[in-house]
Amino acid sequence: MKMEKEYFLSGKINEECGVFGVFNVEAASQLTYYGLHSLQHRGQEGAGIASANKDMIIRHRGEGLVTEVFTEKKLKTLLGEISIGHVRYSTTGGGGIDNVQPILIRSHKGDFVIAHNGNIVNAEKLKIELESMGSVFQCTSDSEIIGHLIQREEGSFEEKIIKALPKLEGAFSFLIMTTEAIYAIRDKNGLRPLSMAKIGEGYGFSSETSAFEIVGGEFLRGLKPGEMVIVTKEGIKSKNYTLATQNKMCAMEYIYFSRPDSVINSLNVHNSRRMAGKILAREYQVEADIVIGVPDSSLSAAMGYSDFSGLPYEMGLIKNRYVGRTFIKPSQQQRERGVKMKLSAMESVVKGKRVVLIDDSIVRGTTSKLIVKLLKEAGAKEVHMRIASPPIISPCFYGVDTSTYNELISTRLNEKELAKYIEADSVAFLTESNLEEALGENICKACFTEKYPTEIFGLLDKIKKEGKNE
Amino acid sequence: MKMEKEYFLSGKINEECGVFGVFNVEAASQLTYYGLHSLQHRGQEGAGIASANKDMIIRHRGEGLVTEVFTEKKLKTLLGEISIGHVRYSTTGGGGIDNVQPILIRSHKGDFVIAHNGNIVNAEKLKIELESMGSVFQCTSDSEIIGHLIQREEGSFEEKIIKALPKLEGAFSFLIMTTEAIYAIRDKNGLRPLSMAKIGEGYGFSSETSAFEIVGGEFLRGLKPGEMVIVTKEGIKSKNYTLATQNKMCAMEYIYFSRPDSVINSLNVHNSRRMAGKILAREYQVEADIVIGVPDSSLSAAMGYSDFSGLPYEMGLIKNRYVGRTFIKPSQQQRERGVKMKLSAMESVVKGKRVVLIDDSIVRGTTSKLIVKLLKEAGAKEVHMRIASPPIISPCFYGVDTSTYNELISTRLNEKELAKYIEADSVAFLTESNLEEALGENICKACFTEKYPTEIFGLLDKIKKEGKNE
Amino acid sequence: MKMEKEYFLSGKINEECGVFGVFNVEAASQLTYYGLHSLQHRGQEGAGIASANKDMIIRHRGEGLVTEVFTEKKLKTLLGEISIGHVRYSTTGGGGIDNVQPILIRSHKGDFVIAHNGNIVNAEKLKIELESMGSVFQCTSDSEIIGHLIQREEGSFEEKIIKALPKLEGAFSFLIMTTEAIYAIRDKNGLRPLSMAKIGEGYGFSSETSAFEIVGGEFLRGLKPGEMVIVTKEGIKSKNYTLATQNKMCAMEYIYFSRPDSVINSLNVHNSRRMAGKILAREYQVEADIVIGVPDSSLSAAMGYSDFSGLPYEMGLIKNRYVGRTFIKPSQQQRERGVKMKLSAMESVVKGKRVVLIDDSIVRGTTSKLIVKLLKEAGAKEVHMRIASPPIISPCFYGVDTSTYNELISTRLNEKELAKYIEADSVAFLTESNLEEALGENICKACFTEKYPTEIFGLLDKIKKEGKNE
Amino acid sequence: MKMEKEYFLSGKINEECGVFGVFNVEAASQLTYYGLHSLQHRGQEGAGIASANKDMIIRHRGEGLVTEVFTEKKLKTLLGEISIGHVRYSTTGGGGIDNVQPILIRSHKGDFVIAHNGNIVNAEKLKIELESMGSVFQCTSDSEIIGHLIQREEGSFEEKIIKALPKLEGAFSFLIMTTEAIYAIRDKNGLRPLSMAKIGEGYGFSSETSAFEIVGGEFLRGLKPGEMVIVTKEGIKSKNYTLATQNKMCAMEYIYFSRPDSVINSLNVHNSRRMAGKILAREYQVEADIVIGVPDSSLSAAMGYSDFSGLPYEMGLIKNRYVGRTFIKPSQQQRERGVKMKLSAMESVVKGKRVVLIDDSIVRGTTSKLIVKLLKEAGAKEVHMRIASPPIISPCFYGVDTSTYNELISTRLNEKELAKYIEADSVAFLTESNLEEALGENICKACFTEKYPTEIFGLLDKIKKEGKNE
Repeated sequence: MKMEKEYFLSGKINEECGVFGVFNVEAASQLTYYGLHSLQHRGQEGAGIASANKDMIIRHRGEGLVTEVFTEKKLKTLLGEISIGHVRYSTTGGGGIDNVQPILIRSHKGDFVIAHNGNIVNAEKLKIELESMGSVFQCTSDSEIIGHLIQREEGSFEEKIIKALPKLEGAFSFLIMTTEAIYAIRDKNGLRPLSMAKIGEGYGFSSETSAFEIVGGEFLRGLKPGEMVIVTKEGIKSKNYTLATQNKMCAMEYIYFSRPDSVINSLNVHNSRRMAGKILAREYQVEADIVIGVPDSSLSAAMGYSDFSGLPYEMGLIKNRYVGRTFIKPSQQQRERGVKMKLSAMESVVKGKRVVLIDDSIVRGTTSKLIVKLLKEAGAKEVHMRIASPPIISPCFYGVDTSTYNELISTRLNEKELAKYIEADSVAFLTESNLEEALGENICKACFTEKYPTEIFGLLDKIKKEGKNE
Repeated sequence: MKMEKEYFLSGKINEECGVFGVFNVEAASQLTYYGLHSLQHRGQEGAGIASANKDMIIRHRGEGLVTEVFTEKKLKTLLGEISIGHVRYSTTGGGGIDNVQPILIRSHKGDFVIAHNGNIVNAEKLKIELESMGSVFQCTSDSEIIGHLIQREEGSFEEKIIKALPKLEGAFSFLIMTTEAIYAIRDKNGLRPLSMAKIGEGYGFSSETSAFEIVGGEFLRGLKPGEMVIVTKEGIKSKNYTLATQNKMCAMEYIYFSRPDSVINSLNVHNSRRMAGKILAREYQVEADIVIGVPDSSLSAAMGYSDFSGLPYEMGLIKNRYVGRTFIKPSQQQRERGVKMKLSAMESVVKGKRVVLIDDSIVRGTTSKLIVKLLKEAGAKEVHMRIASPPIISPCFYGVDTSTYNELISTRLNEKELAKYIEADSVAFLTESNLEEALGENICKACFTEKYPTEIFGLLDKIKKEGKNE
Repeated sequence: MKMEKEYFLSGKINEECGVFGVFNVEAASQLTYYGLHSLQHRGQEGAGIASANKDMIIRHRGEGLVTEVFTEKKLKTLLGEISIGHVRYSTTGGGGIDNVQPILIRSHKGDFVIAHNGNIVNAEKLKIELESMGSVFQCTSDSEIIGHLIQREEGSFEEKIIKALPKLEGAFSFLIMTTEAIYAIRDKNGLRPLSMAKIGEGYGFSSETSAFEIVGGEFLRGLKPGEMVIVTKEGIKSKNYTLATQNKMCAMEYIYFSRPDSVINSLNVHNSRRMAGKILAREYQVEADIVIGVPDSSLSAAMGYSDFSGLPYEMGLIKNRYVGRTFIKPSQQQRERGVKMKLSAMESVVKGKRVVLIDDSIVRGTTSKLIVKLLKEAGAKEVHMRIASPPIISPCFYGVDTSTYNELISTRLNEKELAKYIEADSVAFLTESNLEEALGENICKACFTEKYPTEIFGLLDKIKKEGKNE
Repeated sequence: MKMEKEYFLSGKINEECGVFGVFNVEAASQLTYYGLHSLQHRGQEGAGIASANKDMIIRHRGEGLVTEVFTEKKLKTLLGEISIGHVRYSTTGGGGIDNVQPILIRSHKGDFVIAHNGNIVNAEKLKIELESMGSVFQCTSDSEIIGHLIQREEGSFEEKIIKALPKLEGAFSFLIMTTEAIYAIRDKNGLRPLSMAKIGEGYGFSSETSAFEIVGGEFLRGLKPGEMVIVTKEGIKSKNYTLATQNKMCAMEYIYFSRPDSVINSLNVHNSRRMAGKILAREYQVEADIVIGVPDSSLSAAMGYSDFSGLPYEMGLIKNRYVGRTFIKPSQQQRERGVKMKLSAMESVVKGKRVVLIDDSIVRGTTSKLIVKLLKEAGAKEVHMRIASPPIISPCFYGVDTSTYNELISTRLNEKELAKYIEADSVAFLTESNLEEALGENICKACFTEKYPTEIFGLLDKIKKEGKNE
């Protein structure tokens, strides 16, 4: 879950992404560029933008950051007042440029474009069914499926979408664009976020509310589970493609993925983290001198811990801002250098101190171990690790890469054993009920509980059987 | 048809491509790289290679020359002993990377890869039918269709291909690769070339025979119209997927496209051109001092003209070898500079001379006009243009871009008028029967006669109706 | 001074750089790569590394980040156990690749390499003198001068350096490398930092101590003003090339440039900033609800302000981590978007609050104005700006770009006027004596006082006369 | 000497380059771009252009082809009506971008720019002298020397050049540009070509006359040995900086380097080669069926051979036009593939034939051997190699890389032995007097005779002593 940690340790990565779109605004693709840039933390592997100009849809996509994929010249070719875009985090499958979205479907009835955030849990089943009816798949991602389902339905384009959506199980937010409309869709379980805003005379959609400011948008509301919002020249309307909904926002959106200034289901992310930090302090008191967080995602929780405990909040770890995709990775035996290229301990801050170290989550524990080592080498007398979420014990099938299942350290070690393994003086996690106290009840906690809010089509058994699904 | 001329004048380009593949050879993708390099003259817009390693198919493709798309590192990831590749010439549709082949179809029954040279004339009809059954298209090219047709059939993979092929009308050579086999296919009209060779213990396939030498291959034979050759670990076998065949090799393969050292239907390209030049000399005598050809494709015909006429063969035009895709194009009013960047007249050769200038074909006449001007400015006393093919009066639907139809100068001007227009002292073309004398009867001459060897599904009417199909 | 602010507002930039070198270590250039990466915040325009392998010096340099300039392959060509490198911040002159260091001097007596951090104030005078003696300059930077001065002296290479150095006035830290030695040099005024470390059997040098950790180095000490340290196979020795020294470390190293985990003259940067924040709180009390800092360089001071005032430290501004060199800059009328691409206000944090906003310095006030606006739009009731340094009233000639002199807002507006201009509710700066309280007396405060620690060769008059030196 | 052969065989390359410049024309840098493009065959390693706009000189340079180094955007920054440029062939020293010209000298008296074609034979001596006076060298090329010599003289810029030039020994054509003038200079031995043209109201200079056509220039004349032509706003004037001149144009300019449409010392290159071919036929009759040339540089001589002998001129070898710098080189044991990537034998032409094969020169014989093999494998019954120049027996110090000296096969083998070595049926070279018959007496034949037209400062002894100077 910790994107950057994972990056060093195994190349295992999640499938969280970001989508952004605007309708009826000037220079639509340019606003989409700025919007995607604000969502860049949700995916750095690839980016794409499509725009509709009169009867034509133009798309450009590439591997890398938004700012690497798009030049001013390229952006100027993406004419029109309707545009959607996508930033992609790498998936297990990888697949390079082929899997970079948005997906463009060519049709004699009118081309359309799809940007997808999330994971379809019945993807394999649907693909086999579709193939048996003659469908041809060209990507390894599951986002292509919705295009096939739509094409196989009858009726107006809107009707076709509404008929297709109930066949999908899992987590998804879609933006679908034609030359005349944008269809914004949230899955019936509400697992992935999607919000809408007013931008001048037009509208905007975004995975996170924090992207609206840069485009001058005024946040209206989040879409509801099972809702489809359609904007056309005639205006905006909302439909429920199903009424069998529940509200199970991915807890990791609060804990790790989203920007602190985003608001999800009326709860600000920074505040939710700060609250988690306060609860940690309340539940797991410890004699210590200072509290520090692993930058950037754990700083809010560290502040919360400081609030409640009264321990001074300190800057004990410094993050190097320039670690990009292109840096030369240290060889295997130099794994420590990898962490050191990203994080430095502040000797002047931690020397001789008993440190409470806040991190948002622990996946495999390997990075945690190296961070503890960093702090001890810098002179920390004690390091008490406090994790602002419960232990991760089950794989996610809704967008977080499941392939690390067998490496999930909390499936094997309890807090005490874990403390020993990472050489910390103590370790404590939030409990499930603590988490609900911080985030409310309408969240998906499957990775902490193995209780999935949807059918999962045998995926868990499959992974367990395979032992190590790599 | 004149690739390089067109390049300067309108961006209109044909859809001729090159395919190459090898089976059961070491470092298969590396041989494919060398083979495609030898076919580079058939397409410079994009290149791609796929290889099969055990159960996995890997593909890499990109825009540009073979040597630009593939680094050594990239090539080394394309493991395995089976590989096919493709070089692409830009199409009207363009479409960037999405249209670069080979096409990779993902399927739970096993992935497969398609490389296609040619044009399907019933593509639009097939696409609409397939879409109405739910197919989803992601390219603008027609090469995707065969994948859909195969997927919709029942039976073994071989059976599926054999059932699918008869639905296609038009010109095509396919290489289809699975993890276990290569299927090499030629259309039933024999419009596009495809040859096979023995390479050590394995086999090779190529659009032109000239690519076999570099990979150490021994040319076996060309495929027959309507033939499918299958190579697997069990060996090689041939099937006819139809018996309703004819032998109508595209005349332009001899006249312009192919390398002079290629052999098509047992006739060497250089020799066929030299023969065309001899016939030109025999039919259209003229008082002159020297004969020169437009490099490179008209040099063979110029030699032939010299052979018969006894006029000295001279180097009257020099071609700059370094004009690549990236050169900065002169502005519109500097069109002459565009030609001058590519061709220079040899003043010391042509000054004061009566010149016979051989070109392989005339499309719009604009470049011809500039070349005549070049020679006159260099001091040529007279310029007699002799064209080693008949006047082009009808569009091609088999791979040569039809969009230039309304600009085909021979639909409007006879030889005398054309001479006046391009400011030459005379112009003469081969006749249709001259062409048969040089190339034999088994050729497609549709672009000279408007008599198409296949049904063309109303394409001609459509183009004529549209007036200017751009 | 505010690198990133400046970037948006005018392209004016300072000449601070970073140097790093190692002697007698394996894979020296690789360690230099990691070291430079840790100094990346000191310059992002260009990077270069030279290494000495036996009798040969190899150098590679390029424009961009360390990770962009060096591939693994490139780095492997830089063989040997001695290496120095440089990261460059863009200068007014710019000059692209020509000005990227290290400078390589070819000589029949042995090549040598120079990496320079700082500014020579008598550069123009020296260049004219050298030219009059026949010297040829090929860069616009002043770093080339030391090479010329060395070449014109007699004696051993060490003697030549010692004779050359006293001719230079101004701010400099040099690393000079031959195939046998590294010479590390600090200017006699101590204006620029340079530290040394033990790395295994060898030694390392760095502009900042924070770069030693990543290469496994143990910080030994900072060089003294006027000191030259020489490392050879025989060991390490120290010489004073002059005794007329003073200790005037650039205050901006503490206030803005350096990483918080660096130690300069025994004072940790983070601690010095935190102390400055405490003093701000003590001197300029204000009724408020929260205190926030402009990330990243002002967070330490904001913490200090919180410490003393008891106001909660909050995360009121979020910085986008993905703003690189390549992003498409908003047009002039969209200057606000430029700031918004980098900074977002946390509505949930600041809404309805009276905010103390800490920034490290104010140059032109334009960015400050936009940040205040951001916060007010996010609902902040009041914004009290507190600056962790005194007003900047005079240009710097030691490495901070002087060209902004006429735009220095504090030369025209007092605190009250400035508050009005940037639409803050109040503004307050540290005083000169406050600064000494935080940083000690051994600092250069010329930009706050117009009292320069060296002769400045008429540079101030020149700038004032020119009015606007752009 | 054979650029492309050498490329495959050892990386040994000559230092021939191309220079081009224009004065008092609109969009001067754009014309320089086109001019350099026409000189691209003289160097593909790097390219650079400088232009003077008012008081400022701007330069851009890079590694690669002219079309790769310059984008339209880049070219537009090179404003002004004066411009000079350079294309560089790689040297032994290599040195990457540092050695790419033109060289830009920064001076407080006015910047200037140098483009140099040729080799200074007393370079080492001059460098040591200059260094002993304090000069600092930053390139490994010898072109930097002239800048130093000029800077050390007194007087006007013109006077300084005139005083500096006599110190240089060897081969050179210089273009020197200030913001007000271009100085075009040819060495006193006339070893390297340089011509001038009228372009509208302005002037142009070029290494070869063939580059004038593309820029609309009218060839005026070649510069004389020891001449300096100066163009300023006041007009054009000519000076002799020395009267001790001779006329010793490099024979290789005719034999290999120059484009066939260039005129050197009033003799057209194509005609000179054709004449050489005729003489070959006259001197070395052989029973044969056809005559073929190695493309492209030997086609003219093959035509000449055909003219005299009456044997048919044929296209027996085809050259692949797409072999660029980036192709993946076959491994060492696949050296044959390297040649095959560039050249194919025409089986249909050579099968069963006795072939006269014309090549322009033989350096090491390795490529010749592979070409003979190609032809024999394609069925040639006999291959009689005829070389359109004498045996190369001595190194060149004027621009052709001397490092291959010990590999010069004609120092070891006579014609009979050579025929055996390359497996040809016979080999014959032109004699020295044959060469004079073709090219006239005013040529440098040092590489065929070991008689150098200038002092060579012990360079020959040095090379012989070193045995193998690599």
